Amino acid sequence: MREVAIVGAKTTDFGELWDSSLRDLVVEAGVGAIEDAGINGEKIDAMYIGNMSGGKFVEQEHLGALIADYSGLARGLHVPSTRVEAACASGGLALRQAIQAVASGYSNIVVAAGAEKMTDISSSGVTDALAAAADREWEGMQGATFPGIYAMIAKLHMKKYGTTSEQLAAAAVKNHENGMHNPIAQFKSKITIDQVLKSIMVSDPIRILDCSPVSDGAAAVVVVPAEDALKYTDAPIYIKASAQASDTIALHDRRDITTLDATVAAAKRAYEMAKLTPKDISFVEVHDCFTIAEICAIEDLGFFEKGKGGPATLNGETALNANISVNPSGGLKSSGHPVGATGIKQAVEAVHQLRGEAGKRQVSNAKYGMMHNIGGSGATSVIHIFSNER
Amino acid sequence: MREVAIVGAKTTDFGELWDSSLRDLVVEAGVGAIEDAGINGEKIDAMYIGNMSGGKFVEQEHLGALIADYSGLARGLHVPSTRVEAACASGGLALRQAIQAVASGYSNIVVAAGAEKMTDISSSGVTDALAAAADREWEGMQGATFPGIYAMIAKLHMKKYGTTSEQLAAAAVKNHENGMHNPIAQFKSKITIDQVLKSIMVSDPIRILDCSPVSDGAAAVVVVPAEDALKYTDAPIYIKASAQASDTIALHDRRDITTLDATVAAAKRAYEMAKLTPKDISFVEVHDCFTIAEICAIEDLGFFEKGKGGPATLNGETALNANISVNPSGGLKSSGHPVGATGIKQAVEAVHQLRGEAGKRQVSNAKYGMMHNIGGSGATSVIHIFSNER
Repeated sequence: MREVAIVGAKTTDFGELWDSSLRDLVVEAGVGAIEDAGINGEKIDAMYIGNMSGGKFVEQEHLGALIADYSGLARGLHVPSTRVEAACASGGLALRQAIQAVASGYSNIVVAAGAEKMTDISSSGVTDALAAAADREWEGMQGATFPGIYAMIAKLHMKKYGTTSEQLAAAAVKNHENGMHNPIAQFKSKITIDQVLKSIMVSDPIRILDCSPVSDGAAAVVVVPAEDALKYTDAPIYIKASAQASDTIALHDRRDITTLDATVAAAKRAYEMAKLTPKDISFVEVHDCFTIAEICAIEDLGFFEKGKGGPATLNGETALNANISVNPSGGLKSSGHPVGATGIKQAVEAVHQLRGEAGKRQVSNAKYGMMHNIGGSGATSVIHIFSNER
Repeated sequence: MREVAIVGAKTTDFGELWDSSLRDLVVEAGVGAIEDAGINGEKIDAMYIGNMSGGKFVEQEHLGALIADYSGLARGLHVPSTRVEAACASGGLALRQAIQAVASGYSNIVVAAGAEKMTDISSSGVTDALAAAADREWEGMQGATFPGIYAMIAKLHMKKYGTTSEQLAAAAVKNHENGMHNPIAQFKSKITIDQVLKSIMVSDPIRILDCSPVSDGAAAVVVVPAEDALKYTDAPIYIKASAQASDTIALHDRRDITTLDATVAAAKRAYEMAKLTPKDISFVEVHDCFTIAEICAIEDLGFFEKGKGGPATLNGETALNANISVNPSGGLKSSGHPVGATGIKQAVEAVHQLRGEAGKRQVSNAKYGMMHNIGGSGATSVIHIFSNER
């Protein structure tokens, strides 16, 4: 298996981007990543794009060919380009396919992109499109949408472990503190625990400030064989692990809804592949689509014992440069969550952190960065570990 | 790069399957392929599923996790499972990702499936969902749907090369002759050129009997490293080439709409990878979504000179065991075209042919089989070559 490295990375602004179409956003991110790598676009020999629901959000499927075309790589060059979808984990899986394309020897210079344009349809349309990530027959048709699904997880977590709304709120507050220093973040404002606790209720106990927003955005990285990486950059970022796991798509079939078993399984595979333990990880970008998802993630990834994630967050143990820096980018909550782009945006953040380019949100002495990207309520979990050392 | 082989294959019936849901169909095909390989399902370490538009057809995205779950491989085993989409080329690309997963060493026993359930929504809904495979902004929004797009290709092919409606019809007639002997085919009836020429006009010069139907169905194959293949079967089928290419998504940006340049480029890559020429190919499953698409394909793949595909078809040169056996399965026209399943169904047909299991539609002395699967009007083209010799 060939080792793989990242030599270029770029994220568009995340937010309500009324002036940009999906294709504009992907091209901006893709061209940015290629420029960052100092590579001529003609050298690219494959592309992958993570996108959850172009069909529902912008009435467009077949996004692989579309972005090859709009990047100028279709006519004449005929660069293969493939869309990958696993709901909100689409970006992480596009990266994983790009890594396997290079590891297999099928390709040498691959762009992995992620993109979503969510604000072109009504908010009820967005809620319905996102509900297609859950089990439509057993959840969606019964009226369950994602805030409700995560509310059930939160309720049981509170009952079993004594987790409080204040502890959940602390995750959002910390992510906004980090996101204030992230130029691409959708929300750069500081918020307080009191504001979260007084924000409108969406689905008890989840309030609006416990939720990641609806966003537009795209991100891209350039992936090459590790042995070639120094040709392109003085600071390659090496892939130490790429791991994926599935769980039941519907919540009611799970062993225990407060533990996301796909995350536990993918983390085990990732640590084994990288020969690392949670203690070795300098920072982690976790999938905080709701604050309870961040609490579950930091437990399921092995950073805290089950049930201790809430108190640890409230105690500041997950703040920038505390015990473990969780979501230095601001996470989904503050950076925004254009669903197909999120997994790649996490990778771009890890590249910036491991290069020491993250400015006021820089994690000190960052050596190993982890990315945790999930689909739906955790039926897909994909985890990557990067390092600035080969 | 590890060599890769197929050791199991299965297709559900194709047709209007009112009694089966999308998940039923995928599980039937997947379990069938695993049984065909004699493998215990617990040994599977990755799954890929090609599906074009679960979001629009059955309001369900996140199909990777869904099928892992409904195959009993999510809970406990947590088998990674990924959806791949490139419109009607989704199946071919799912196979390609499965091959790369094995070639890279990331996985050892991979199921590549394809599925679509198209008959649960109105026919206008189907037409709109399929239009998302074209350029929505430059084609769909101007009223262009796929019969119209292929009609433009056909009109110019007729003007430049003298291709006739009778020649187009001959492709449909030949495919029905082959499909009569395919137990999974949607239409097992014989048709005549006269019937095609008198069938209702859809978009001049394309008549209803020039069109592949709207279908439900699923198909699956089991992919392993070639060095392990004889553990599972006495008749492994070896992957000699897997090649992919892109073209502009909209027709108006093409160099020449009568040549599908992505097919030309992917074929060149496939022949080079397999070290073969068109003369070596025993049979080819081509993507005959419309009869004109078959004519273009047999030219673009190098079996006939440009402009000679129509006369060759009318002369019977593409019939079973003639110069080149084209679509021994009956193709999309007779077998049916559940869009995400088609690329995998082509692979299943190739496995049956190369094993000598195809009964009355058996190609004599089949040694090299080619599969040609395209998305939209040819913006994605994916080509595989299989052999029964390593």
